[in-house]
Amino acid sequence: MNDGEFQAYLAEVKGKVEKEFPAIVSGLSSPKTLIESMNYSLTAGGKRIRPLLIFATLRAFGKEEEIGIPAACAVEMIHTYSLIHDDLPSMDDDDLRRGKPTNHKVFGEAMAILAGDALLTNSFQVLAQARHPDVSDSMKLRLVIELSKAAGAEGMVGGQVADMEGEQKKLSLEELEYIHKNKTGKLLSFCVKAGAILADAPEAQMEQLSEFSTHLGLAFQIRDDILDIEGNEEQLGKPVGSDTENEKTTYPALLGMEAAKEKLRFHIEKAKQCLRNANIQHEILEKICTYIEKRNS
Amino acid sequence: MNDGEFQAYLAEVKGKVEKEFPAIVSGLSSPKTLIESMNYSLTAGGKRIRPLLIFATLRAFGKEEEIGIPAACAVEMIHTYSLIHDDLPSMDDDDLRRGKPTNHKVFGEAMAILAGDALLTNSFQVLAQARHPDVSDSMKLRLVIELSKAAGAEGMVGGQVADMEGEQKKLSLEELEYIHKNKTGKLLSFCVKAGAILADAPEAQMEQLSEFSTHLGLAFQIRDDILDIEGNEEQLGKPVGSDTENEKTTYPALLGMEAAKEKLRFHIEKAKQCLRNANIQHEILEKICTYIEKRNS
Repeated sequence: MNDGEFQAYLAEVKGKVEKEFPAIVSGLSSPKTLIESMNYSLTAGGKRIRPLLIFATLRAFGKEEEIGIPAACAVEMIHTYSLIHDDLPSMDDDDLRRGKPTNHKVFGEAMAILAGDALLTNSFQVLAQARHPDVSDSMKLRLVIELSKAAGAEGMVGGQVADMEGEQKKLSLEELEYIHKNKTGKLLSFCVKAGAILADAPEAQMEQLSEFSTHLGLAFQIRDDILDIEGNEEQLGKPVGSDTENEKTTYPALLGMEAAKEKLRFHIEKAKQCLRNANIQHEILEKICTYIEKRNS
Repeated sequence: MNDGEFQAYLAEVKGKVEKEFPAIVSGLSSPKTLIESMNYSLTAGGKRIRPLLIFATLRAFGKEEEIGIPAACAVEMIHTYSLIHDDLPSMDDDDLRRGKPTNHKVFGEAMAILAGDALLTNSFQVLAQARHPDVSDSMKLRLVIELSKAAGAEGMVGGQVADMEGEQKKLSLEELEYIHKNKTGKLLSFCVKAGAILADAPEAQMEQLSEFSTHLGLAFQIRDDILDIEGNEEQLGKPVGSDTENEKTTYPALLGMEAAKEKLRFHIEKAKQCLRNANIQHEILEKICTYIEKRNS
């Protein structure tokens, strides 16, 4: 798979997931404004990296991507709700997201909270109602458990709390890694695990993939921190320099830019090593590593 | 079962559910403040009517209550999150709940939103991780689907949006019933359905119980509206007259007090009829009907 083919694959994945959203949201028997508010943020774009990880992991086990569509939609619903709530005035108080006004700017604060709540709640329905002959009840149940762990108090929400409490305070590297492992890492890891569960992967490969996804998640975050300094506002769709302005602890702030870049390369190399050890068809997953290492948005 | 025995049963149910909370929340590997905030609202008391409905339905099929404990905890977590979010400044802006400061008054708005998010997310983990030899994976999966439906965009959240949009507007009886069926009714109905699913009840009995719970839910809400006018502040733990003050459409406001009371009796009678038709050991469920009809808090 060359770079052009990989870009085409990214676009294909995005299309496959976004094609499902109308059926998930627009068809709801719910008040119209709620549907509009959910839909506004769910369809606001984004790289759809989480679905990509689910699909690429399925591919690595020679499985068709269709198996992972409900999980991919569920995880995008969770990711979207977390952005809506993070942007609220009492949280990060952001007016823009991906170049568009944030949900509460358009629909008001109360509706934004409720749209987030609904996306979160309904994601479990989407996940549990997956219909594919290769997906058993016990697999779906494992996905529900893993998603709630990854997104809840011991995962994403816990990380968000730690991030909030760590603001304007100089954090240690250990504290910084705790935040990122939880706030973004665990949901990314869920995606890889979901692919492996749906592919009925053996335990040994699960472990390699779990280690892979931890390194990938940290790399993802370090790249994010670097982009906030060296990135291009237009490509990013958001202003650069906000971390420095808010005196946030980041990898470059803590380690210096060169060491941060070294750390990025380290985690990418480790992630690729895990892939080679896992003995799977890892071509696309490896491409994703490089993509995350080099991404500009 | 006489009234004294029923009161003892209520206390027993409350104890059984509340005994589980420390293991669910305090044991979490999460930032301390998040755990405190979740715990503060989860253990703030309440009648635990939802667990009561799960347990009483299991009893009606001759099943032990232990089977329903995870579902009972999950539904209390969902109910608690909904109260935390409803009380927020951008929603109902309430300072007191059950005589105690509301969550955001103690922990701040951001933490209250996140504690609600975590309770909601983790409720699915609690539900899906139920361990009892009589509870199959397929039962747990049905519970996950039913809970997300009842609590999400087509249930509780949808009802809350409709309620919000209907404020300070004169609603028709139909609009009022839509709000209540969704905002409170569907979660109450979930409890009865959860008991029936866990008892492996046949379809015909499920249908009778579904009708039963719809009537019970409406009766619950009409009694709520009546209590806001005729209730005793001390017994209720909240000020009376707030609906009138906020010009909220209620059953007494729409129909007059006598007709509202008549409607309450009607739904209670219908609920009891469904119980008789269901051909189950309905003694406790019938007691619950009377309890809801006469409750003062």
